[in-house]
Amino acid sequence: MDIEDLARRVIAGERRALARAITLVESQRDDHRDMAIALGKAVAGTGRQALRLGLSGTPGVGKSTFIESFGKMLTAQGLRVAVLAVDPSSSRSGGSILGDKTRMEELSRDPRAFIRPSPSQSQLGGVARRTREVVALCEAAGFDVVLIETVGVGQSETMVAEMSDLFLLLLAPAGGDELQGVKRGIMEIADMILINKADGELKPVANRTCADYAGALRLLRKRPEDPKDFPKAMTVSAVAGDGLETAWEEMTTLADWRREHGHWDLRRAEQSRHWFEEEVRLGLLARLSNSAEMRERMQALGNSVAGGQLAPAAAAEEMLTILDARG
Amino acid sequence: MDIEDLARRVIAGERRALARAITLVESQRDDHRDMAIALGKAVAGTGRQALRLGLSGTPGVGKSTFIESFGKMLTAQGLRVAVLAVDPSSSRSGGSILGDKTRMEELSRDPRAFIRPSPSQSQLGGVARRTREVVALCEAAGFDVVLIETVGVGQSETMVAEMSDLFLLLLAPAGGDELQGVKRGIMEIADMILINKADGELKPVANRTCADYAGALRLLRKRPEDPKDFPKAMTVSAVAGDGLETAWEEMTTLADWRREHGHWDLRRAEQSRHWFEEEVRLGLLARLSNSAEMRERMQALGNSVAGGQLAPAAAAEEMLTILDARG
Repeated sequence: MDIEDLARRVIAGERRALARAITLVESQRDDHRDMAIALGKAVAGTGRQALRLGLSGTPGVGKSTFIESFGKMLTAQGLRVAVLAVDPSSSRSGGSILGDKTRMEELSRDPRAFIRPSPSQSQLGGVARRTREVVALCEAAGFDVVLIETVGVGQSETMVAEMSDLFLLLLAPAGGDELQGVKRGIMEIADMILINKADGELKPVANRTCADYAGALRLLRKRPEDPKDFPKAMTVSAVAGDGLETAWEEMTTLADWRREHGHWDLRRAEQSRHWFEEEVRLGLLARLSNSAEMRERMQALGNSVAGGQLAPAAAAEEMLTILDARG
Repeated sequence: MDIEDLARRVIAGERRALARAITLVESQRDDHRDMAIALGKAVAGTGRQALRLGLSGTPGVGKSTFIESFGKMLTAQGLRVAVLAVDPSSSRSGGSILGDKTRMEELSRDPRAFIRPSPSQSQLGGVARRTREVVALCEAAGFDVVLIETVGVGQSETMVAEMSDLFLLLLAPAGGDELQGVKRGIMEIADMILINKADGELKPVANRTCADYAGALRLLRKRPEDPKDFPKAMTVSAVAGDGLETAWEEMTTLADWRREHGHWDLRRAEQSRHWFEEEVRLGLLARLSNSAEMRERMQALGNSVAGGQLAPAAAAEEMLTILDARG
């Protein structure tokens, strides 16, 4: 595979080249990994930056409908939009992305949009690290907005926030009692909370829910990277298309403010450092499972520990000595 | 330090030797770590097993009062009880354990009880790995019950469950709405849920809360290691001493059932293997921070990444090559 050529075609905006580059990045083969790193170097330096939007919402809040409506509104403005996902439970059958495309029928046929489902790895850490590299590819390919969606499971929201410029939380209208259901940690990383389904008979509930969350957000510690009024809660209706333009205006306002005040670059620098450290950690741990020999040693020592012949700490010491000797 | 002698005195049940052994295990000095591993080997093979009880409960549910009452009931039956804690936020001032001892005044003066606060490390993983070794020391010292308490913060409950034979969740009486506040994951690892403060005017609320949780537990998947009726919810009053004996009977019933049906040994074997693997992982990651040279390399590469000169994955590759070369 000619990596330099592939990089050139990704940067030129060729969709098939981008799809192929992503497949390379997501591959678990060692030789592919080396090529993926070379590709990452080759596409670096375009200086292109997309607005990276993280979006979390549990099933049932209308996330797909929101992405479809919101994405179409953006492409109608001439913007190019990439939609990625971080979902460790998703599995892709033979490269088809049926699940996501049928849920976002019009957007998936839009020439200005590019939809790619979650990499099919079982480990959240593995999914997230690949998605982050895909974000970089999409930026090099000239997308204006990269939307990274996740369902609110475990650590996935934190990981998506770590690769986003803005983090959006999509919620359904609900009674005040359920406000507690949103983990406090998520409230703290959200830049905007969007209450969806603010239409028809749910509209009054949506407005109340919005007021509840706006109140809760005011109770949170003010962050230095926020202008006043942020983080904020708003209502939208993905089905009716209401509130989407206003939401987009607020996002660009917040993004511009952060750019002007230096928070944007600082945040991206910190995020990159974080991902580097995470890559090193994951790479180190991979030493334990990459070779059959090491897997067998782990297994054998684990058996001794399980059988009570060896204490966990003593067995670990032995394993670490083996790993060190091997280098 | 004569490790063999220290081990003998721990096994003989000398409190001061146990305290000293724990201090050794908790030390972060490299030479102490080597001695701690030797000590672990020297005390292994007594064949003594305590009942390891994990106990979780957020501040305000009366955890200290429960441990005090429950512990005194056990020591009054002639049992020897060790109380440990896993709490990454706790800090110990110069070896004094004032905080815990004043909260459990009578138990701390009981010759059959031994109370030891959480190791003072900032990382939860570090706290938990040391506590697990302290559990082994307490078993070698002949304690019948080792109670490991934790506040319900982050992953600490899972880690305590990973070193316990039975996992207890202590809750306060509360309205049905708040049932959702207990993380589903905790419900799934709990063997018994104890609703405390079932006394005075809170008694009716406690009974209702108990019924709510009993109902919720019935909805959970049946686990093969449980006899019928488990996991179960019960009310207790630590202040009045009500329900503590019944709770203890239920615990021993469950423990005996698991011993007879082979689940006890299996669970301990799996736990040991888990802790071994965790020790290896933590030991590998420590390679990144143990030497000043590696810390500097990480820092320098991190700076290049933050500055945008190097992609996270490429920088990680470089760091891993350096670590490999060093062995």
